[in-house]
Amino acid sequence: MRTVEILERKRDGEPLEEDEIRFLIDGYCEGSIPDYQMASFAMAVVWHGMTFDETLALTKAMIDSGDIIDCRGLGKKSIDKHSTGGVGDKTTLVVAPLVASLGYAVPKLSGRGLGHTGGTLDKLESIPGYRTSIDQDTFLDIVSRIGVAVASPTENIVPADKLLYALRDATATVRSLPLIASSIMSKKLAVATDAISLDVKVGEGAFFRTLDEAREFAHLAIRIGDTMDRRVHCMLSAMDAPLGHAIGNALEVQEAIATLHGMGPTDFVAVCESASLSMLHALEPGLDEKNGLERIRNAIHSGRAWEVFREWIAAQGGDIRTIDDPSLLPQAARSIDVTASHAGTVSAVHALMLGHLAMELGAGRETKEDSIDPSAGIVLHVSPGVTVQAGDVLATLFTNAPGDETPWVEQLREACPLENRPGHAAPSPILEMVGA
Amino acid sequence: MRTVEILERKRDGEPLEEDEIRFLIDGYCEGSIPDYQMASFAMAVVWHGMTFDETLALTKAMIDSGDIIDCRGLGKKSIDKHSTGGVGDKTTLVVAPLVASLGYAVPKLSGRGLGHTGGTLDKLESIPGYRTSIDQDTFLDIVSRIGVAVASPTENIVPADKLLYALRDATATVRSLPLIASSIMSKKLAVATDAISLDVKVGEGAFFRTLDEAREFAHLAIRIGDTMDRRVHCMLSAMDAPLGHAIGNALEVQEAIATLHGMGPTDFVAVCESASLSMLHALEPGLDEKNGLERIRNAIHSGRAWEVFREWIAAQGGDIRTIDDPSLLPQAARSIDVTASHAGTVSAVHALMLGHLAMELGAGRETKEDSIDPSAGIVLHVSPGVTVQAGDVLATLFTNAPGDETPWVEQLREACPLENRPGHAAPSPILEMVGA
Repeated sequence: MRTVEILERKRDGEPLEEDEIRFLIDGYCEGSIPDYQMASFAMAVVWHGMTFDETLALTKAMIDSGDIIDCRGLGKKSIDKHSTGGVGDKTTLVVAPLVASLGYAVPKLSGRGLGHTGGTLDKLESIPGYRTSIDQDTFLDIVSRIGVAVASPTENIVPADKLLYALRDATATVRSLPLIASSIMSKKLAVATDAISLDVKVGEGAFFRTLDEAREFAHLAIRIGDTMDRRVHCMLSAMDAPLGHAIGNALEVQEAIATLHGMGPTDFVAVCESASLSMLHALEPGLDEKNGLERIRNAIHSGRAWEVFREWIAAQGGDIRTIDDPSLLPQAARSIDVTASHAGTVSAVHALMLGHLAMELGAGRETKEDSIDPSAGIVLHVSPGVTVQAGDVLATLFTNAPGDETPWVEQLREACPLENRPGHAAPSPILEMVGA
Repeated sequence: MRTVEILERKRDGEPLEEDEIRFLIDGYCEGSIPDYQMASFAMAVVWHGMTFDETLALTKAMIDSGDIIDCRGLGKKSIDKHSTGGVGDKTTLVVAPLVASLGYAVPKLSGRGLGHTGGTLDKLESIPGYRTSIDQDTFLDIVSRIGVAVASPTENIVPADKLLYALRDATATVRSLPLIASSIMSKKLAVATDAISLDVKVGEGAFFRTLDEAREFAHLAIRIGDTMDRRVHCMLSAMDAPLGHAIGNALEVQEAIATLHGMGPTDFVAVCESASLSMLHALEPGLDEKNGLERIRNAIHSGRAWEVFREWIAAQGGDIRTIDDPSLLPQAARSIDVTASHAGTVSAVHALMLGHLAMELGAGRETKEDSIDPSAGIVLHVSPGVTVQAGDVLATLFTNAPGDETPWVEQLREACPLENRPGHAAPSPILEMVGA
């Protein structure tokens, strides 16, 4: 098989055969196919798309590039949960222990944040002692005993995706539905669970900018799962404003803890409930939604979800005292209240701008090599539709970074524009539930 | 300027600015932009094409990546001639000395053959002693004294094109009109002459498969030349059958010599006359074609073109005895007559298949590192439309390669299929003249 001939066929819009796609992925992983040929392939895929069979072949070839962690023999049904990422998205911290408390296994390999989006591993590492690098046996043992574990993937989970994703990032080939779907689904399918739930974010702070794109992705992911014998359910949710009030690692852990105590912000509680419901849909064919929602709410009110959270954090080495008393979590040296310069109604709270501001404050990384300040971030005191007076606090910024605060204050104000019109409450962030 | 953002804009079909294109080319030559980003760029250009301004900017940036050889101060008007390449195309060997004999300077940097197409430098090197690597002063001195010199470009003539062409070859991004035009025109414009004539080949053995593609290229090349203050004229000619009877380096030199002596094959003579006419069109605004053609034919019949050929070959170190007596040129140890297995009319003579067969016999190279056998090749005894009897010789193969001749014989017969229908002579290979 000649690589250039495969590239020519893809360039000319002809669908590739499974063995040709496997030849590309295997060759790329082995080093016999260079970066520049894969870059040309990726751009040709952005151009022509892929048939379902091609997308499936790519997903399978990527899975087969590494190890598979089988989580289906743990004595209970297992589910993996994934969010396509957003600003202030700490949903996993709540729903993973919640669904585990309902008798399911929630094994999750998670990622780190990059750019304006946070990563679950970074959030968990703000809890002193929490270990994200644990071996596979320990991981499965914790899932088996407690019902939930969240760790970083080893080098050999879908190594093809690591290579390909870094290449796509550098070659403007990230935005391609089949490449996105095969990247996400290969990682989900390499951790073999009974079911998969996807939180597909839509909006200016998200990967998908329109509901149509998100819907198309959801249907493709469900179809891939179906073909690979996994039940997939998707929740589509808005990511125009940040989720909840907190952005930043320790700040988000605190908000997750409050939510597990039944005191979460309305929008975030709605997302946690629907995400849990999506997980139950994937696990239980023919779920009665009303009954499901009751069990979810009861898991919070009874304190069982919180108990599982504590056990899980303890099992992975986290200092329980810091979650029992979140004032012991990392605290920033500087806190800056940003006030409204004039009266008005908050017309929007821009997730993307706040994600970038949080990164500047130290909460995120611009490149993979940057380190993170776990205490840095933003706590919002307003949400879209709220009316404020001049001098009211819009948000508090937390940082250990030196320097003049003026540019940060300006960015925060720009991210929360005030208009002279009556306020109306923001709609629910839940857009659609898609799946069996 | 961020490379990924430029790639994103090209991916999304937005035209790039001149400084963005220059940033890419400069960065690629310096090594700050890696192969994989240029591969992604090239595929995005294959996808979206380029506006005229983008193509012009790319051509200029490529020219500026290296040196310029100015051939405009030699006391006579100068012209560069280029063919997009084909099988059996030895036109330069005839028309360069011919047009020089009419009082013009014909400085030409040429290339080597790759794949099924031959290269003028390989042909000239089959003349013992001929030096293709000469320094710029010697090159200009020979052009000035004799009117013609044909040499290999130094490393620093359009280095960007060398890098980009090798990358395009490996990434299925060769077939793109703006990339083809900027590659060819940057090399032509870096040798600054008053005029440029292009022989644009069309057909199965050529770069352009359809007349429309060739026409589009011709108009683009003329427009680039116009903007850069160079008169460009194009001849579009067929490359379905090989040009003339000879394929292979020393064999083609012999055929060129015969043509300079007024004894060339009809189709090749027609191409030489029209190519010379195209060169005169580019040099002489308002040329009277009838008068031009008379001067061209007279240059052959008077022996002046042959005299200039001899002087030129001698000036570049070639052994004059071998061109005065072509039996002294390299001769192959084996010659194989391929006969017709049955009677019939030659329905086609497939250039592409014969180009590949000549390569197998030793006349061409598959990779840049392969060496060439100057004596190897094919002499055809038939042309399309000719009727043969069983046992008539279709062609003679020349080679020093060992091994069974059967596969070569079969390939030759396959390349010259016989049909049971009345013959009709092949049409002239000249398709169209395009230009001022």
